[in-house]
Amino acid sequence: MVDKKLGGAGLRGQVAGETALCTVGKTGSGLTYRGYDIKELAEKVSFEEVAYLLAKGELPNAQQLSDYKARLKSMRAIPQALKDVLERIPKEAHPMDVMRTGCSMLGNLETEESFDQADSAIERMLALFPGIVLYWYRFSHDGVRIDTETDEDSIGAHFLKLLHDEPPSELHAAVMNTSLILYAEHEFNASTFTARVCASTLSDIHSCVTGAIGSLRGPLHGGANEAAMDLIEDMKDPEDAEKTLMGMLERKEKIMGFGHAIYREFDPRNEVIKAWSKKLADQVGDSRLYDVSERCEEVMWREKKLFPNADFFHASAYHYMGIPTKLFTPIFVMSRVTGWTAHVKEQRANNRIIRPSADYTGPEARPVPAMADRG
Amino acid sequence: MVDKKLGGAGLRGQVAGETALCTVGKTGSGLTYRGYDIKELAEKVSFEEVAYLLAKGELPNAQQLSDYKARLKSMRAIPQALKDVLERIPKEAHPMDVMRTGCSMLGNLETEESFDQADSAIERMLALFPGIVLYWYRFSHDGVRIDTETDEDSIGAHFLKLLHDEPPSELHAAVMNTSLILYAEHEFNASTFTARVCASTLSDIHSCVTGAIGSLRGPLHGGANEAAMDLIEDMKDPEDAEKTLMGMLERKEKIMGFGHAIYREFDPRNEVIKAWSKKLADQVGDSRLYDVSERCEEVMWREKKLFPNADFFHASAYHYMGIPTKLFTPIFVMSRVTGWTAHVKEQRANNRIIRPSADYTGPEARPVPAMADRG
Repeated sequence: MVDKKLGGAGLRGQVAGETALCTVGKTGSGLTYRGYDIKELAEKVSFEEVAYLLAKGELPNAQQLSDYKARLKSMRAIPQALKDVLERIPKEAHPMDVMRTGCSMLGNLETEESFDQADSAIERMLALFPGIVLYWYRFSHDGVRIDTETDEDSIGAHFLKLLHDEPPSELHAAVMNTSLILYAEHEFNASTFTARVCASTLSDIHSCVTGAIGSLRGPLHGGANEAAMDLIEDMKDPEDAEKTLMGMLERKEKIMGFGHAIYREFDPRNEVIKAWSKKLADQVGDSRLYDVSERCEEVMWREKKLFPNADFFHASAYHYMGIPTKLFTPIFVMSRVTGWTAHVKEQRANNRIIRPSADYTGPEARPVPAMADRG
Repeated sequence: MVDKKLGGAGLRGQVAGETALCTVGKTGSGLTYRGYDIKELAEKVSFEEVAYLLAKGELPNAQQLSDYKARLKSMRAIPQALKDVLERIPKEAHPMDVMRTGCSMLGNLETEESFDQADSAIERMLALFPGIVLYWYRFSHDGVRIDTETDEDSIGAHFLKLLHDEPPSELHAAVMNTSLILYAEHEFNASTFTARVCASTLSDIHSCVTGAIGSLRGPLHGGANEAAMDLIEDMKDPEDAEKTLMGMLERKEKIMGFGHAIYREFDPRNEVIKAWSKKLADQVGDSRLYDVSERCEEVMWREKKLFPNADFFHASAYHYMGIPTKLFTPIFVMSRVTGWTAHVKEQRANNRIIRPSADYTGPEARPVPAMADRG
């Protein structure tokens, strides 16, 4: 193994293509989707409007939005063959493996035969992903075969209804809406880049999304909100949080949910989800998780000048809504599929196969030894 | 859409990391695996030795090889839940979608829980992939549930036995062996790079391989041997081949199986597989496909200075062995899984998450319009 080269490692700072979808930290902070600031979107629009924006380029008018939501709502039934597959996945499986397999199986049943089918394939995945993960979850954990067609109007509320068997409160539906907006798109992150590399071979859209799910599964990428929950769930109060974190810092343990590869001063998504986490704590009447999270934020800034990223306050927010920790990253998938697929369309529209070079560090040319001469 | 930038597009020529596995066209031609020339390997060793070389760093001695082959042979049984999944995939499905789904499902049943399980997960995929695609193929096309445990000693012969229900001739087993060696590894091609991007998030190995299969599926990547078969199968004789190709060139149609992103003068894999295709033609006693292929080679060089790549003579070779065209790219998977997984291990050993940048070409910052003000 030669010395690790940090310059260029991970393609950091190297331009791998163009995008009209998103700016991340363009002026050191800030996140925009097609020119709209994420904070304004989170305040004023629904996730479905953001999904439409990413797919089509502009926000929908009232008629377009109503048609779009009706279409998504009509696409929530899972094909029987896919249900059969989900029923054969064990309870102990990683939910991201379930989503990866569900998406891949969907590609067998409803193959994108030509690129003009991309939009309907995208809408189908957006409509179906909550049902895929929760059909498996409820079957394997609760022993029930749920009906994945609900009357809930939004994807966020639909997810909560499938999980809890009852319509969510307005507050919960609003938090899910915001959360899905915050996670929708983030430029050339590793999972999106996976989707673009796959798209650059002109493969089908289910291959692209299946691959992206596999990358998002990695603990350095999508798993951070679950890791944040693991961190805070046993903290009794802010003093306990302080003590735990200081101990971890002293032992140089990795603390998930803080800092970011691109943002330097703060993650613009944090203040949005943090405010919702506070509202949920107030409504539940149990502020422990929120209070320990806030203390973690203070300690990490004081000690390491690290700020919470989008994932950190998501942990408490999701937990307050009764969402099991193992389903946190699948929610990320339900949202980010909008960004991934918009990137796939963009890659296809101006494509060259993505095929970088490597520095060779292996043995010099050598002759094949006879079997008897091998070590 | 701004002007297409060719410089830097597709990361061509940009170094995305280091590898000790392979050199591609280091001096304008030539392909080596860990320092061994591909032509010498194809002449002297078995595919299992190459798989071992890629996984472990050195060629096995006699005892190591015998243990390795015994281990692979013992891992050919498909779990019932995976059989159930394969039986639910329609006959019309794309075989690469079947392999992608089979690999993903395997990840649910035999999850790589920690990286020290990588080697056994790799061996299992190597042993199981022929069975996965052929269990589905024979069930959906012939209505039979095959036993995927055969007595065949090599992966290539095992594949042919599962396909044809009888042990292959020595010649056919030898051709499969060579073919699997030729396709095993090829540096940072798009599917391998997909696997490395996924690995860089520290995701599991089934996610990496599932994503790589999805990328290999693309017609710009793994689909070329099938496209070559589509091209030659209706050519009656060399004169007909000449006429067809000249017409296609005149109409500026894309001709698959020629030229290469890296090699400038020839593809070192071509002369190896071409010689085997000739032997097969002689044995079958029907040289039409070989003769038209050779004429295609002449015409493409004369007219465009393009040479056949690894895929072109694979088409006739596979066809002579009675392999249906739709199974050509899955054979590529059975072989390349060795390269992909060796890259995954290499990425993990010296990792930084792969997260490039993008040039932004979208709208300037803009306020969110009220619903009534949208177009």
